[in-house]
Amino acid sequence: MIELIPVRGLPEIRKDDDLAALVVELIELQPRDVLVLAQKAVSKAEGRVVRIDDYEASAKAIELAADERDPREIEVILREAKRIVRERGPLVIAETRHGFVCASAGVDHSNAPEHGTLVLLPVDPDASARAVRARIAELTGVEVGVIVTDSFGRPFRQGTTDVAIGVAGLPPMLDLRGTTDRIGYELRSSRVAIADEIAGAADLARGKAEGVPAVVVRGLQLSGDGSAKEIVIEHELDLFS
Amino acid sequence: MIELIPVRGLPEIRKDDDLAALVVELIELQPRDVLVLAQKAVSKAEGRVVRIDDYEASAKAIELAADERDPREIEVILREAKRIVRERGPLVIAETRHGFVCASAGVDHSNAPEHGTLVLLPVDPDASARAVRARIAELTGVEVGVIVTDSFGRPFRQGTTDVAIGVAGLPPMLDLRGTTDRIGYELRSSRVAIADEIAGAADLARGKAEGVPAVVVRGLQLSGDGSAKEIVIEHELDLFS
Repeated sequence: MIELIPVRGLPEIRKDDDLAALVVELIELQPRDVLVLAQKAVSKAEGRVVRIDDYEASAKAIELAADERDPREIEVILREAKRIVRERGPLVIAETRHGFVCASAGVDHSNAPEHGTLVLLPVDPDASARAVRARIAELTGVEVGVIVTDSFGRPFRQGTTDVAIGVAGLPPMLDLRGTTDRIGYELRSSRVAIADEIAGAADLARGKAEGVPAVVVRGLQLSGDGSAKEIVIEHELDLFS
Repeated sequence: MIELIPVRGLPEIRKDDDLAALVVELIELQPRDVLVLAQKAVSKAEGRVVRIDDYEASAKAIELAADERDPREIEVILREAKRIVRERGPLVIAETRHGFVCASAGVDHSNAPEHGTLVLLPVDPDASARAVRARIAELTGVEVGVIVTDSFGRPFRQGTTDVAIGVAGLPPMLDLRGTTDRIGYELRSSRVAIADEIAGAADLARGKAEGVPAVVVRGLQLSGDGSAKEIVIEHELDLFS
């Protein structure tokens, strides 16, 4: 059995907060637990919050904003983006510098600490996950996995699901290639993005509107390590897009 | 807390098996549990298994097979597809008659009952879910949610995740539009595809190579109803694709 346990009672996260210390005060972690952290909490602890007043909109940002959105917000998005994948009105789907394809290059004002601010993705979410994992080991002696998640839309299907943007202390993909099913056929859909499945599972326990940014997933029994970069697919190899 | 409980001990599923009866013999279901069933078990119970020898490959199927795959298998895929979305060598991404976009239009030979057979998606996976839900209520008096799942690849990211192709007795989407965050901003990524997150969560408890086709998700406390058709997006409205 696997358990999804929300970590209730965390304060509003601020710059330089010790997320690992805050979590281990609230829950006794066990070896091989996976701690799932919402990107926004991680970004805030890392000071990845900008003031919109500090930006001046470029011509491109003004054009994309189309009088429907603050062009300075679009400017922030453009600076976080490596490539614009789609644009329609003021909606922008972009590839982030990490290689993730998502709305607004991950820039968000929901749950921002105050009006007029925007929260950016961590500079290196894998490093964020590794740092939290190391700090938990230091504080408690317990080795856990850590996943940093964000809510992404996706092609072909409505709505968002939470996915992994940073991973430490667990394998993000379960590779079943070479394993066979009961009658000896090689399994076809043989690489499972378990870090994304864990991210989505944790979201179920979070209660989005309540803002519980930390969820512990217990009972997975995964071993190995890896990074969220393994989930990113090179555009040329992406049969689906 | 949410629990993901694999239902171990199910036999190999055959045509006309009573899946609901088999499951309730192995686990005591509680109100608001969500029973997650792998598509292949549902398809086999519904007799959605074909013999490849019964098909003759069309010219299009022979062309797509490109000497790398049995063209009769491609023929089965073409007959299940409403639209070919991408093709590369013998790999085909197709929109199924239900509107799902996935590899091989959902046609699969892994875990097929015997060599030379292929398993097709249920004709109406929402109806499959509704039938199992009704049968469980009949047998036990307990109202549960039911999700039928399949493993889909997706654009922009490696690997598959399990998603919902049939839903009964729970809302597939959690609509947070209009709800506000702590400082009063309307939540942006405000429609969450929880049926897909539940599907992926259940996959974590399944142990893919072991072939546990049924997982109970307990503790969600969802109310409402809906169908997996709500997750399908019309191509014209799909900013991501």
